[in-house]
Amino acid sequence: MISILIIGDGNVASHLYQAFLKADAVIVTKINSRNLTDIPNADVTIIAVSDDAIAEVSSKIPNSLVVHTSGSVAMNSLNNKGRKGVFYMLQTFSKNKIVDFSEVPFCLEAENEKDYILLELLANLIGKKVYAINSEQRKALHIAAVFVNNFSNHMYKIGSDICAENNVPFAILEPLIKETASKIETLSPAEAQTGPAIRKDQRTINEHLALLNKQQQEIYTTVTKSIQNGN
Amino acid sequence: MISILIIGDGNVASHLYQAFLKADAVIVTKINSRNLTDIPNADVTIIAVSDDAIAEVSSKIPNSLVVHTSGSVAMNSLNNKGRKGVFYMLQTFSKNKIVDFSEVPFCLEAENEKDYILLELLANLIGKKVYAINSEQRKALHIAAVFVNNFSNHMYKIGSDICAENNVPFAILEPLIKETASKIETLSPAEAQTGPAIRKDQRTINEHLALLNKQQQEIYTTVTKSIQNGN
Repeated sequence: MISILIIGDGNVASHLYQAFLKADAVIVTKINSRNLTDIPNADVTIIAVSDDAIAEVSSKIPNSLVVHTSGSVAMNSLNNKGRKGVFYMLQTFSKNKIVDFSEVPFCLEAENEKDYILLELLANLIGKKVYAINSEQRKALHIAAVFVNNFSNHMYKIGSDICAENNVPFAILEPLIKETASKIETLSPAEAQTGPAIRKDQRTINEHLALLNKQQQEIYTTVTKSIQNGN
Repeated sequence: MISILIIGDGNVASHLYQAFLKADAVIVTKINSRNLTDIPNADVTIIAVSDDAIAEVSSKIPNSLVVHTSGSVAMNSLNNKGRKGVFYMLQTFSKNKIVDFSEVPFCLEAENEKDYILLELLANLIGKKVYAINSEQRKALHIAAVFVNNFSNHMYKIGSDICAENNVPFAILEPLIKETASKIETLSPAEAQTGPAIRKDQRTINEHLALLNKQQQEIYTTVTKSIQNGN
């Protein structure tokens, strides 16, 4: 039996806790990060708290190994006295949406080979896609994830606003959104690019700008310029 | 038998031609828009050319009904003498990617009910999702499509560039991209928003900006501001 302690009460902590509860060969406990007295012993302590709290929370953990789950915090930002590692799941977690862990890429890092193998074992208990990713690569991945997830979702948000303003069901756009996402399996994003920006269709671009609000115009102009510059 | 003439040689024209070739009850012919002599008779002539060429190409078509396939050109921009309509497929078409027409929303418009019913019949021969969308609504949909398709794809492009620069396989991001797109079936884009922008996590935002090039920084800043303003 491997004992796991999860610290945190956000989406990552609770999805991870639920996943390990169903796994064989582990005993999992979860505690709140605001209640760090009488910390249970564990083979692996997973700190799933906000980036800003990782250093302070980790300094209070007597256990070893201690890992965090952040995409943007270096492994050596952990302040525990013992061994350190990272257990980063490159996926988006929402309260009301079930996560299919078999599709989640686990990006792991540890100070030594033995700890890496332990983290790999845990990741394979709940998932399938496991990668060794160092702190520098993880930071790059996290930034890339902001673009492909957070920023794409904001593009959906603007599309949804435009539909609402014109009494058109946003559902009409769903097939296009899914097709756009699945295209990258067969084409690179550069190859898949279509639309007025890449065509340099200035008449359409101007017509679109005339119908947008100021903030939407700013995004439209900035992204169009970037597409046209091949950035 | 309904006779269809498709004019154009881009992606839309050739995908549409292939789809109608497989359909029952229609005879389909396709000609190049640069060769408009001896235009064959047809019950429906579908002009699938660039937006800028629709007015001129349509002026040379003696047939009626004539429809275009553009998301951003009004029905009355057609310059044929006979009846007019629109046969807009809100989907992205690429040369090297098969299109599943059963997933494509057909947005139709005609000057009279009889022509609308004919276009609806044609759309149902090759597809399943058919909507009556007037010229104003179609323009709004087209702008929304630019955001959810063209601009999201450019976010993938930037993510892919960042991965390449850091020797990380872009494939790690594929599950996240698909999850982001499928989330909108159960959550609105506003509800689905995660990441440093919506959390107002300024430390992470600053760290990301420090690692981006100038054009990427401009997009990052503009989209982050828009997310934070709730636009």
